[in-house]
Order: sequence, then structure tokens, then C-alpha cells
Amino acid sequence: MTGNAIATIDRFVAGDWGSTAMRLHLCERRGDEVVPIDRAAGSGVKFCDDFEAAFFDAAGAWFERDGALPVILAGMIGSNLGWVDCPYAACPADASALARHVRRFTARGIEIGIVPGLRCTNIFGLPDVMRGEEVQIFGLLAHPGWPRGRQIVCLPGTHAKWVVIEDGAVQSFFTSMQGEMFEILLAHSLVGRGLPQGAQRRPILADDDEFVKGVRVMIDDPSLATEHAVFAARSRFVTGDLAAADAPAFLSGLLIGAEAFDALGAFGARGIDVDAVTLVGAEGLMPLYALALERLGVAVRMVPAHSASIAGLSALVGAHDRAAAR
Amino acid sequence: MTGNAIATIDRFVAGDWGSTAMRLHLCERRGDEVVPIDRAAGSGVKFCDDFEAAFFDAAGAWFERDGALPVILAGMIGSNLGWVDCPYAACPADASALARHVRRFTARGIEIGIVPGLRCTNIFGLPDVMRGEEVQIFGLLAHPGWPRGRQIVCLPGTHAKWVVIEDGAVQSFFTSMQGEMFEILLAHSLVGRGLPQGAQRRPILADDDEFVKGVRVMIDDPSLATEHAVFAARSRFVTGDLAAADAPAFLSGLLIGAEAFDALGAFGARGIDVDAVTLVGAEGLMPLYALALERLGVAVRMVPAHSASIAGLSALVGAHDRAAAR
Repeated sequence: MTGNAIATIDRFVAGDWGSTAMRLHLCERRGDEVVPIDRAAGSGVKFCDDFEAAFFDAAGAWFERDGALPVILAGMIGSNLGWVDCPYAACPADASALARHVRRFTARGIEIGIVPGLRCTNIFGLPDVMRGEEVQIFGLLAHPGWPRGRQIVCLPGTHAKWVVIEDGAVQSFFTSMQGEMFEILLAHSLVGRGLPQGAQRRPILADDDEFVKGVRVMIDDPSLATEHAVFAARSRFVTGDLAAADAPAFLSGLLIGAEAFDALGAFGARGIDVDAVTLVGAEGLMPLYALALERLGVAVRMVPAHSASIAGLSALVGAHDRAAAR
Repeated sequence: MTGNAIATIDRFVAGDWGSTAMRLHLCERRGDEVVPIDRAAGSGVKFCDDFEAAFFDAAGAWFERDGALPVILAGMIGSNLGWVDCPYAACPADASALARHVRRFTARGIEIGIVPGLRCTNIFGLPDVMRGEEVQIFGLLAHPGWPRGRQIVCLPGTHAKWVVIEDGAVQSFFTSMQGEMFEILLAHSLVGRGLPQGAQRRPILADDDEFVKGVRVMIDDPSLATEHAVFAARSRFVTGDLAAADAPAFLSGLLIGAEAFDALGAFGARGIDVDAVTLVGAEGLMPLYALALERLGVAVRMVPAHSASIAGLSALVGAHDRAAAR
């Protein structure tokens, strides 16, 4: 392996290595900007039994060409089922606390850092954890324009996170199951029977009438809970009031409407009045949350998860470089 | 087939033929009492392609011996996937309305009645349906001691029903998905990963500490919604705060606590103050609902589903006999 001192300063490898997929990016700093210039993919943690081999199968060519680039990885790869067990950092946590908890080790002459997840006691007094989303949050916070004071960030997804940030630190967060509930209700419950599955389902858009109807049903009736609403996707279907092709959108509207309504209610019950939420997520999903939040009178800003993730990983590589230089 | 006029008056066949199982009972009237004297079982609707053959395979010996006994069946056997499509009767519905909607036909010389399900617009303004539970409800109502006035009945199960009854008629009902959510969360979501599955799970009892804790977590915090609570079963497990063997009980407590709290809240929002609930269900499940309801200050009466079902089917056979005699 040949080193190239200049390249190692300008480039690094940033990766999100989760349960189901490994996604690596070769990144290059250009002034204040970080540009992903190449990418590679591999097996997720749960399909992988030799993490070192899998990693170098995916990224090895970059090191062959550019030398011993630093590597920073986040996600389930740092769990007790991953490459190294990297315990959750406790909240409140700012970027420097997260950087201190990055686990560093060397494999085949390459220095690899794995980002810890975060743990907290959430606003309901329950323990909560995240692993992978934290780099997106600190990607936001690394932006020079990020405001001081208290901010609410929502990261929609399979297990959505609602995060309270204050003065650059994650104070606490709680997890919503609605993303995974949507999938398992359609795939495994009576509600999904007779409805299109997987790839047969059309994408749900924020201006889909049935999505909007689901949101409206939930937010217009504070006494309607998720568990009492969901069956309506089935009963409307069997009574001929809802077409099979439209039922997933209605169900999604119910679930996202409930999640947003209940999240704002929970913050409000603690004196946290939310007038704006920053969404960080997939570009197809954020507009659905935005619609529900805007109907609830909340201003929304959307940041693609991918760019927040690169920014966060980049900040952690940077934090390490600065720490090493001291 | 030999007839026996006396036997046909005293005996009848009552059956619950659902998606997953057919359960038939040979019943005998003894004064005011109906006694199941024999039983038979067969395939559920979704596993069956010749309903007539399946029925006579299970019950044929009774007709051989006792003659042309009347038969009354309830459940998915009356759906559009069943033996005859028996459309839902609309609420409000009393016992005579239900009896009028029973579909009667003759197969192999035996008169068979299939009970319709019920449909309504529920208290949330959404369509709702049930099929099978209605015979249990009318079994309760057929009891001479059933009080007049407004009563709330809850039928816990895979799809629990919360029913408003007034002066002998079902006014409306809504469906809770918590029973099926419990099963699919454990079997198919991240929450169930690493936890005991199916038969490895110990039965959950109402005095199980973790069940009680789950109920308490939900009812002590009105701002905590189901979708924001469920992940705690995972986060408590991964942070070492909850043993794998105890996690299903905690999850069940969260779900049942939320369901009961939210149901009472929804009734209360409509001026229906609930001071007592009649539970009709499986004998292992009712005490869990009773604990949650009693913690919420509600008096509970429990009626086993099996006896309510026999009473309801018996009343419908009786209603038909009386109608035929007019």
C-alpha cells in the first residue's frame, strides 16, 4: 500500500453501515465544502460475518490509490453485533462529547473510527437510544447557520427520532415506531390483507387525497389514538369506501398525523412550545411529515439525510484531526 | 338420515367459524339453560375450499344420530370469503334486527343459519365492522339480568371491540388494533428482536411486575402515545434495564394501558362517562384489561367469551324458532 500525504489530508472515507446495508463514500474537502466523489456498498451488519473483509472488499481500491485515508463509520456496525462494540454516549451530548466517544482502531494499516450511538432518558422518563442518526444531527449542528437556543429536530424513518437540541447539544430524544408499524401492519396484519404489497404499492405523495384525509382524521380529533384509528383502513376497504390502491396512503396519513400531533402534544405538556421543526430524512418521506406539521401550525425546514450524514461524519473526522494535532 | 322430532327441539348446533378455525358445539336446552354437550372442530375459512364438506365432516355424526338439528354459525364463514356472503347489519341493531339478517339456507337437508356481522359509524366518525363478536354481545343482552340504560362492553382480542349498548341495542363500536400489534411487534419488528417468541413466551399475568409497570407508564402520562411508548420495550432491553423474558409483559402493559386510557378518554370527550365496563373475552386476557381499567377507576365485570357466544347463538336459534312459529 503506497501512502500519499497530501491526499490523506484532503480525503476521507465516511460510511453508514447499518443492519441491512453498508454505504461508503469517498469524500473530499474543498474549502468549507465536503464533496462525496465516489461510493461503494456492501452487506449490512446482520448479513455479515467478517466485517474487516467486507469493509476492505468495498473500500480497498481507494486505499490502494490514495493511501491510508482516515475512515469514520456510523450505524449498527458499532453495536454489540458489529465490528467493535461502541457503547452509547449519554445525553446531553455535544459534538465534542460524541467525538471523544468515537472508538478508534487500526485494521490493515488504516485508522478506523466508529461513532457511538446516543442514549438518554426521554421526556417521558423512559430510556431511549439511537445509533446512526446522531451523525445526521451533528451534521446539522456543524452548520455555521444553525441557530442557538432550543430547537426540535425530527428524523423520520423506520424508527423516527424526535430530538430536543439546546445550544449545540442533544438534550434528549424519543422514538416513534410509526414507520415500522406502517410496514408490519401492511405486511403482517389484517389491515394489509388484500392491499398491494411492496413494489406493487405506489409511492405516497403529500398531496395524495387519502394521505391528507388520514392526517386530517387524526389531527381533527384529539381523542382518536393510533390504536383506535388504524383499523379504519381495513373497515373503509371492506365497506367499499376506500380502494385497495389508496389504502396505504390513508394508513400512512393516520400514522404520521398521529405521530406529529402526539409529539407536539408531548412537548407542549412540558412547556416546550414548538413553532418550527427541522426534518432530516429521505426526500420522499419528509414532505409527508411536513404536511402534517404544517397543518398543525408548525414551520418546517427539510434537510436531506444524506447531506446531513456526510456533514456529520466529516465533522467527526475533523474533530479527531484537531484533537490529534493538540 | 333418520329424524327425531323431540331431539330437534331440544338440541341445536352452534358454531364459531373464523378465519383460522371452525369450532362447533352440540348444545342442549335444559329449562332456561343451554348446555354444550359435545364439540367438533375443523379448518378455518382461509384454509378451506369446500365449506359444505368441511362442515359435514365435523358435524355429520350428530345429524346421523339426532336428525335434522338446526344450525347457527357466526364468524368469517359469513364473509365474502365464506360459505354464503352475509352482509353486515347496520347499527343501531338489537337482537331482533340481527335475527332478521341471519341468512338461512339448506344443505344436505339441514337448515343452516349464518349470523351477519355488524357495521356502524363509530364515535370517531369512521366506518367500523365486526364479524363473530356480535353473537357474544347479544349473548350478554339475552341475559335477564342485563341492565337497561347505557353500558360499555369491551371484547379484548386480536381486534378488540369497544361497544356502546343502550336499551338492548348496539349503538356503535370501535376497534382497537393493540392485540394484533402486540403479536406483530414481537414477531416482525425490531422491538421483538432477541425476545422469546411464540411458545417460548411465558403467559402474561395481571400481577406480573413488568405488565403492571407498562400499564402504569401509560396511564400516569396522558401525553405519552402508543407509538412513542412501544420502543421503550427495546431501549430498556438493550440498555440492560429489562430482561428478555420480561419484555413481552412490559410491552403488553404499555399497549393495554394505552388502549384502556385512550378508550375512556374518547368516550369522555363525547360526554360518555364510563364507570363500569363489561369484559367479554378469553379467560387469560380479561384480567389484563381489568387491571388497566380498575387502575383508571372503572368497575369491571368479566364474562367468558365462550359462554357469551353459546348464549348469543342460542338466542338466535330461539329467535328464528319463534319467528317461524308466528
